[in-house]
Amino acid sequence: MKKPKFLSLQVVENIPFVKAGDDLGAVIVDCIKRQNLSVLDGDVFVVAQKIVSRAENMIVPLNSITPTAEANELAEKTSRDPRLCQLILDHSKVLYCNGRAVITEDRLGIVSTSAGIDRSNSGSQEGETAILLPEDPNLSARRIRETVKKLLEVNIAVVISDSLGRPWRKGSVGMTIGLAGISALETGQKIDLSGRKINPEIALVDEIAAAASILMGQADEGYPVIVVRGVGFTPSEEVKIQDLLRPAAEDQVWE
Amino acid sequence: MKKPKFLSLQVVENIPFVKAGDDLGAVIVDCIKRQNLSVLDGDVFVVAQKIVSRAENMIVPLNSITPTAEANELAEKTSRDPRLCQLILDHSKVLYCNGRAVITEDRLGIVSTSAGIDRSNSGSQEGETAILLPEDPNLSARRIRETVKKLLEVNIAVVISDSLGRPWRKGSVGMTIGLAGISALETGQKIDLSGRKINPEIALVDEIAAAASILMGQADEGYPVIVVRGVGFTPSEEVKIQDLLRPAAEDQVWE
Repeated sequence: MKKPKFLSLQVVENIPFVKAGDDLGAVIVDCIKRQNLSVLDGDVFVVAQKIVSRAENMIVPLNSITPTAEANELAEKTSRDPRLCQLILDHSKVLYCNGRAVITEDRLGIVSTSAGIDRSNSGSQEGETAILLPEDPNLSARRIRETVKKLLEVNIAVVISDSLGRPWRKGSVGMTIGLAGISALETGQKIDLSGRKINPEIALVDEIAAAASILMGQADEGYPVIVVRGVGFTPSEEVKIQDLLRPAAEDQVWE
Repeated sequence: MKKPKFLSLQVVENIPFVKAGDDLGAVIVDCIKRQNLSVLDGDVFVVAQKIVSRAENMIVPLNSITPTAEANELAEKTSRDPRLCQLILDHSKVLYCNGRAVITEDRLGIVSTSAGIDRSNSGSQEGETAILLPEDPNLSARRIRETVKKLLEVNIAVVISDSLGRPWRKGSVGMTIGLAGISALETGQKIDLSGRKINPEIALVDEIAAAASILMGQADEGYPVIVVRGVGFTPSEEVKIQDLLRPAAEDQVWE
């Protein structure tokens, strides 16, 4: 594949407050049309997890939750809301508590903090809520991709991103939690000193999610949809986030 | 800070094969001038570790190394060249061996594999060599920044990047190993549901390094210098890579 020399990232402007049941692909296309934004084959749409979760109604009112003894214990240990701890326990396996942080492996296999569950200020009418990850972010990405393909007649890739923390490094970075149309890993054969063929693996989709995160910013101030142009990537119709993950049990770094 | 809506990344073309003693800032400026590339205040130059190390003569001929018993043991355990293992031991603390991978914390505090030491094919005349990280990548970044400032009269930031692996996720991504002129972390105060002020921390420089890595590609096929435009960042004159790192001993995730 010929290496590109220029990469651009463009905010999709005026994305409305996404609500449960909204067709997210159609909402994005509508904004793109109003903005008169060009979209080309090979562009990558990076979409923030939060609006995907909203569209898919992954919002839980905290006052609907009665924490178990286990959740109360986790809450005490981490100085957290017991109802939030109940959600974390319901949606992940807790691997470790590190002070206030709860390191989890969720049902998708993503190792992060708090199972990727955010509390967020969703407006005074709605009261205290938590936003869960989409049920199947790969499917969410495929749906957005299909809708954009149908409405704009372009063949794009979709990356659903979330801001995740990392061990050993401070601060969060944008990473991929679901994707469609683009390989999770790029491998490029080269020859090492001994003449052996080696295959470095690059987590290109995580680099794309990180790049888009520069424009997204955090939470409400940010822009939840970014169009990335100029990535040379390997297309894939069967890709899933699990292609990118090493389950905690298999990652001996963990032990 | 006003959020930008557009981000661009541009390859600096025709960077020559950098040799020990080259003034890297001057080499880059020379290419920028020949390319007629515009550079503006607030641009971020991402420079691949490898050319910084070359310019600073951090190249070690493997046949100059006599491995100790400890290095031989590590070599056996990880099926690696004992001379390379000696270099890893000389330049880092080995935290863990995971099959073939050697997880290390180097003297800068960076947790990575093999202390960031690459074997690389540097041409048949030179034989087998390994390339170490720059002695002080913060200083390397500051030098490049000063030279660019002097020769082009622009106030840029510099990020020195390397491709590093991560736990739980396959594939490498570009990350920062040294920097100048840009804060390591962006914090933006916001209000959570309970009305408390919280300060999310974003590792913006790692997101920039990851973004540039999309164009750099890997090793020789890639482009070692990328100009990133449109990042809204907090300037810093005192920044150092250590601002971004949690030492392994303090990161309980590790234990």
